[in-house]
Amino acid sequence: MNAKRIAPLRRAVLEANLRLARSGLVFGTFGNVSGVDRDEGVFVIKPSGVPYGLLTPARMVPVSLETGEVLAGRLRPSSDTPTHRELYRAFDCGGIAHSHAESATTFAQARQPIRCMGTTHADYFRGDVPVTRPLTEAEVAKAYELHTGLVIVETFRTRGLSATDVPGVVVANHGPFTWGPDAHQAVENALVLEQLARMEIAQRIVAPDAPRPDPFLVEKHFTRKHGKSAYYGQQKKDVQ
Amino acid sequence: MNAKRIAPLRRAVLEANLRLARSGLVFGTFGNVSGVDRDEGVFVIKPSGVPYGLLTPARMVPVSLETGEVLAGRLRPSSDTPTHRELYRAFDCGGIAHSHAESATTFAQARQPIRCMGTTHADYFRGDVPVTRPLTEAEVAKAYELHTGLVIVETFRTRGLSATDVPGVVVANHGPFTWGPDAHQAVENALVLEQLARMEIAQRIVAPDAPRPDPFLVEKHFTRKHGKSAYYGQQKKDVQ
Amino acid sequence: MNAKRIAPLRRAVLEANLRLARSGLVFGTFGNVSGVDRDEGVFVIKPSGVPYGLLTPARMVPVSLETGEVLAGRLRPSSDTPTHRELYRAFDCGGIAHSHAESATTFAQARQPIRCMGTTHADYFRGDVPVTRPLTEAEVAKAYELHTGLVIVETFRTRGLSATDVPGVVVANHGPFTWGPDAHQAVENALVLEQLARMEIAQRIVAPDAPRPDPFLVEKHFTRKHGKSAYYGQQKKDVQ
Amino acid sequence: MNAKRIAPLRRAVLEANLRLARSGLVFGTFGNVSGVDRDEGVFVIKPSGVPYGLLTPARMVPVSLETGEVLAGRLRPSSDTPTHRELYRAFDCGGIAHSHAESATTFAQARQPIRCMGTTHADYFRGDVPVTRPLTEAEVAKAYELHTGLVIVETFRTRGLSATDVPGVVVANHGPFTWGPDAHQAVENALVLEQLARMEIAQRIVAPDAPRPDPFLVEKHFTRKHGKSAYYGQQKKDVQ
Repeated sequence: MNAKRIAPLRRAVLEANLRLARSGLVFGTFGNVSGVDRDEGVFVIKPSGVPYGLLTPARMVPVSLETGEVLAGRLRPSSDTPTHRELYRAFDCGGIAHSHAESATTFAQARQPIRCMGTTHADYFRGDVPVTRPLTEAEVAKAYELHTGLVIVETFRTRGLSATDVPGVVVANHGPFTWGPDAHQAVENALVLEQLARMEIAQRIVAPDAPRPDPFLVEKHFTRKHGKSAYYGQQKKDVQ
Repeated sequence: MNAKRIAPLRRAVLEANLRLARSGLVFGTFGNVSGVDRDEGVFVIKPSGVPYGLLTPARMVPVSLETGEVLAGRLRPSSDTPTHRELYRAFDCGGIAHSHAESATTFAQARQPIRCMGTTHADYFRGDVPVTRPLTEAEVAKAYELHTGLVIVETFRTRGLSATDVPGVVVANHGPFTWGPDAHQAVENALVLEQLARMEIAQRIVAPDAPRPDPFLVEKHFTRKHGKSAYYGQQKKDVQ
Repeated sequence: MNAKRIAPLRRAVLEANLRLARSGLVFGTFGNVSGVDRDEGVFVIKPSGVPYGLLTPARMVPVSLETGEVLAGRLRPSSDTPTHRELYRAFDCGGIAHSHAESATTFAQARQPIRCMGTTHADYFRGDVPVTRPLTEAEVAKAYELHTGLVIVETFRTRGLSATDVPGVVVANHGPFTWGPDAHQAVENALVLEQLARMEIAQRIVAPDAPRPDPFLVEKHFTRKHGKSAYYGQQKKDVQ
Repeated sequence: MNAKRIAPLRRAVLEANLRLARSGLVFGTFGNVSGVDRDEGVFVIKPSGVPYGLLTPARMVPVSLETGEVLAGRLRPSSDTPTHRELYRAFDCGGIAHSHAESATTFAQARQPIRCMGTTHADYFRGDVPVTRPLTEAEVAKAYELHTGLVIVETFRTRGLSATDVPGVVVANHGPFTWGPDAHQAVENALVLEQLARMEIAQRIVAPDAPRPDPFLVEKHFTRKHGKSAYYGQQKKDVQ
């Protein structure tokens, strides 16, 4: 591992972890964010159970994408590290965020997807955010966190979902994972997902059986912000 | 366009956008506020997808009320600009605000009006805040944002509603638009509408079928604050 | 009116209004708090529609308890002043607070009392907080705010309730009024009532038909804090 | 009592009380936290009804574990002191926290346990957080706060629950008590319990009859953080 080359990644991952903490989506030492450098074959993740106030770039733990080994320092990486690693191996993403955010976790505990009910959702997720099946006793007993990653990947594969189009999932009786092009975007998606989950809860009070938005409206909003025909936002050069 | 004459409008529209951001009704770069100078034939609106922290008066985008053309600068205006323009052309108002505020958006997703259930509502909106019909596939495919404006205007026309008496709407599966005499008041109405939507959600929990307030109570409160017989507040000269 | 003697009352009423504003229970210029000096025959109330940031002790409006006349200054008192005056005349209290706080107002709009479901409620209110009947068209048409006060008094009289034991009410389709020994305590009761209303809403979700607390538990908690056998808190001399 | 030896406990208990206050779980002077020094036979608790802003280490009240007597100072201890004392005598814990936190209190008022629905709960509580039976009239009439403690202990004894595995309870029509190895952890558990109660309320909206998490998942998460096979967090020496 080239320590110099991953220094900016460490800072970015620290900043993304702190943003998640500031957002109010985590309490105590819960939650973890990572980012990957695929050229280096390394991802960097929050250490396990260290208070957010004590985090520094040097305390962000580099882990080998290939072997799962810790590549520097004495701190243990987040206990969810094997989950992150499986997701990096299966999905084309640059950052991953995990929290026990209240409303998204409610859907995990309800074992229900967070349905796409409008354009706010469609701006970020191209359809429902799925829920995994529960893990079996064997999967929990041995390599639990690895199996958490595998069941997420299985969820996307068996349903033919694109992890780029739907950058998030809720793990049954556990909580949400989101991802994105980098650690910052993964946290952004975590914040948005929590907001969407809050609206889905309110929707169940107001009109649980309301009709879904038309598919062409969902497509319009997703493609307005993502892909070749996007027309939202600015050219980078016009806003420094 | 006379740049000097619209300078105060640019500052007012910036301030109104920042107020919307501070209120917690928007996340990320979502939400947009505009204000109009009808003598100049210009409205000024937030640029598309620029973080709130980077907004300046000079970055507020002036747009021709007649042609929809951007009149200065290189920044794209908000993607919702054609919606604002249609509303300025149809309604007698000086400012417009759009957000994806959680509770009002829930009603958009539920395709239900925000009902007038008490005097807090009647102080600002003379009756229910309506919901639009969903757009058709053709309306979404071409000039989507223009059609969003048109369907709002259609909603008011076909139901015989006054945009002055009811300065807001929820667009089906999208979110709320509010307006007012200026950009500041449009944001004020956005904040109030969110509060009313929150109470309507709680009302569905406590007593979904509670009787409506008597029409004479609604009239009393609206006219106590609006129009010729208003007696709320002070003479301007007594409070600088 | 002796301006010097009511100066401390003005400051106390200002402070209580600002506390209500800081609490988040009001938005915009909504809400009003007053306090009375019965020896002087004067109560002092917030001016109508003045932003909280512009309030000063001198802008608090003194009103005659006997005639309802404004006794000093050019500012109009709160439009709810006649309601406050009726309550001071009927009830033995030193301060009154009115807000459109979200959850208490939900019960006003639902035309339902805020039920006593536990000891938190019983620590402050000796039983359910009642809801008034709706006003008639005649009562709204003429001297509306006076009739709001009268219907509150009627609610307590016809049900044999003590305004000292139950220092609050929700006015149908309007919102809560609370009172207490002084303006500060009236606001304290407003904050507590909102908290109780929030729990009553959550209770409707979890167990709408849960049994009521036993009357002896309610009595125990109310008398633990109020009246001759109170044993909560300290002797004043031990905590300056 | 050795005043010097309990000085650090007084500071720790003050800090834990202030943390509870900052958390927003208490309003006014509500809520109280204590900590015990079993070698000294003393527990230290917040004084009754003193505003949080006036608390100092010297004002934390030391009480004899054996006799219940106040051992120093003129301030009365929290009115809930006899409850704390019973819990210290029955349970192996070092700190206790009591609040009327909104969502946990809702379950107290609903007389329902806070069910274990996922891993967030299982990380802290090994199964449902139980609710006590209501107290009888005789128990309320005499030594009410003592009986509150006794009914908590009875709840754990009759159901065969371990107070170490399940460090919290909701007292019927009253509110939650939590405990832990020290005062700080007791508050931590209070904050977590409130979060779990919030999710349980949301769960009732989304899917009240959702299946429970598998017991092996609950066990996995509890033992991942607690006991001999815990692997969450760091060696103390690696993070100062």
